[in-house]
Amino acid sequence: MSQVSVRDDEVDIVIAAIEPDLTSFLEEWRAIFSRFHLIIIKDPDIKGELKIPGGFNYDTYTKADIQQIIGPSNAATFSGYSCRYFGSLLSKKKYIISIDDDCIPAKDTKGIQVDAIAQHINNLSTPATPFFFNTLYDPFCKGADFVRGYPFSLRSGVSCAISCGLWLNLADLDAPTQALKPELRNTRYVDAVLTVPARAMMPLSGINIAFDRELVGPALLPSFKLAKEGKFRWETVEDVWTGMCVKVVCDHLGYGVKTGLPYVWRKKRGDAIESLKKEWEGVKLMEEVVPFFQSMKLTPAAKTAEDCVIEIAAAVKEQLGRIDPVFTRAADSMVEWVQLWKTVKTRT
Amino acid sequence: MSQVSVRDDEVDIVIAAIEPDLTSFLEEWRAIFSRFHLIIIKDPDIKGELKIPGGFNYDTYTKADIQQIIGPSNAATFSGYSCRYFGSLLSKKKYIISIDDDCIPAKDTKGIQVDAIAQHINNLSTPATPFFFNTLYDPFCKGADFVRGYPFSLRSGVSCAISCGLWLNLADLDAPTQALKPELRNTRYVDAVLTVPARAMMPLSGINIAFDRELVGPALLPSFKLAKEGKFRWETVEDVWTGMCVKVVCDHLGYGVKTGLPYVWRKKRGDAIESLKKEWEGVKLMEEVVPFFQSMKLTPAAKTAEDCVIEIAAAVKEQLGRIDPVFTRAADSMVEWVQLWKTVKTRT
Repeated sequence: MSQVSVRDDEVDIVIAAIEPDLTSFLEEWRAIFSRFHLIIIKDPDIKGELKIPGGFNYDTYTKADIQQIIGPSNAATFSGYSCRYFGSLLSKKKYIISIDDDCIPAKDTKGIQVDAIAQHINNLSTPATPFFFNTLYDPFCKGADFVRGYPFSLRSGVSCAISCGLWLNLADLDAPTQALKPELRNTRYVDAVLTVPARAMMPLSGINIAFDRELVGPALLPSFKLAKEGKFRWETVEDVWTGMCVKVVCDHLGYGVKTGLPYVWRKKRGDAIESLKKEWEGVKLMEEVVPFFQSMKLTPAAKTAEDCVIEIAAAVKEQLGRIDPVFTRAADSMVEWVQLWKTVKTRT
Repeated sequence: MSQVSVRDDEVDIVIAAIEPDLTSFLEEWRAIFSRFHLIIIKDPDIKGELKIPGGFNYDTYTKADIQQIIGPSNAATFSGYSCRYFGSLLSKKKYIISIDDDCIPAKDTKGIQVDAIAQHINNLSTPATPFFFNTLYDPFCKGADFVRGYPFSLRSGVSCAISCGLWLNLADLDAPTQALKPELRNTRYVDAVLTVPARAMMPLSGINIAFDRELVGPALLPSFKLAKEGKFRWETVEDVWTGMCVKVVCDHLGYGVKTGLPYVWRKKRGDAIESLKKEWEGVKLMEEVVPFFQSMKLTPAAKTAEDCVIEIAAAVKEQLGRIDPVFTRAADSMVEWVQLWKTVKTRT
């Protein structure tokens, strides 16, 4: 059941370079990444030449490239971690896999290095089962199956559009939690993949993620920027926002979202206490964002990911816009992104 | 966060004796069970004296006891695995834990014997989080927490009403799957507990389960008997039915359902090929049952588990009764069970 027949050239690995020197990052991943094409986007806010070791097949894009394709007015959308979305905009591959540049390959419980790319491809190329929960986790994993009581009509599953990987060592916590528990480390290797049920919302993390660009590419988008957003993951919620956006799209279009394996090993970067001093708005805004997405219903007229994003953007503006201007800006960015996506796809 | 303060005398372990000799079963569990009170119900269909080794604190109930309390007309409801429901009817404890008599303690990935009782108690006595999915699994497990983006207002969680454990070796498959893959064994030890999201339905298994009797006891009930039901789990779906019933109740009353740890080691019993010859109705009926429970909405008037069961029974009769008489019988049994529950509770 878990037979996979994805060619290497159907995959782009997109890396957001938040620091210019990618040498140690890429050396750690060499055995896993070198078969694939990389798209490396340099955060337009950082200075210094990109350093990329030899032996990789890659294209790099910098602020100048972003401005040339997008125009200078929209270029700021692609700052920080959001620069990676420029990669999926330019990609022509079916699958996009993206891993933060402070992560290295993890080891499983037997001490064997995890091939995160192979696991993401496996997750995406086998069906997802969002309409009924299988207590034995992903039935398409080796050695697994559907448990008694699982309706046979639902066993063929649906296309999997998103694969959310996890993190060992430093988990993806918010700044307050990270600051409160600076010694907390995630050491639990949970050997499972599961489909997040339809209509359940989840906090997607962009640290270690893969998706089917053809199915939902336009719904993974740079749009939600906090007013005082920093350069650490825990200072941002852009990926959490886009995750709920794409989950609503998947539920509407009948695609699945998987979470679990693969793990990456996440190194420490930044000082959470310093982040806390910035009056992080993320905590407050999520209280509005989550109920909004939980109750979001798309109309039957929304037949593509682009249509869905436009409908969500209109609802964001109408329902959330009056609460905080950050939402109005997000709605505008969503519409601009879809226009950009269509323009780039037509042009290339 | 995972501080547990449950006294041993708040727990009843309920065992359905499908075979009269419980010696080897109880010897395997001695170290884990002996601190707790056991309620042992002998399947009214089987013959032979119950054999129970010394050193346990237990009460046993047989067909005569069932008939005395229930009356002869309803006694058949408690045949086979359903006899265990007689135990929860008589129990006065907060927590009920039930494990099939063909299961022995499992070992974790380090080879250490799993204390299934302690894990179930931990699952039930820490909050559940059904309203938003935590990608790092149960945030109340040791070393875990909520991931970035998880709304702080939802982090206190809700009461956990059900803890569904899993199975190593022989998983809980249906007869067709078991017959098709006789060599299939579950060897994957997934070191996780998670809350099944609200509104997601799941195939609960009665093999290894615990619940809060005070919260949802009346909703775990004997009611759905296939016309040609056998004595093997894969020939039944009574627990799958009751699982969806109790999940709807939990969603309505705002309780959580957890699944995952603890594992038990399930030994082989029975011949799946023989079971297949019995024209198992389970496959066909689940196609009706799952959509029914997925769309089931209870009214605000349903304030207790008993109220909820009565409403579900009425809907079963009305919506499913015309499809197959098995549903009408199930609906009648549900109503009878609630009456019985109320009578027994008043009497004791």
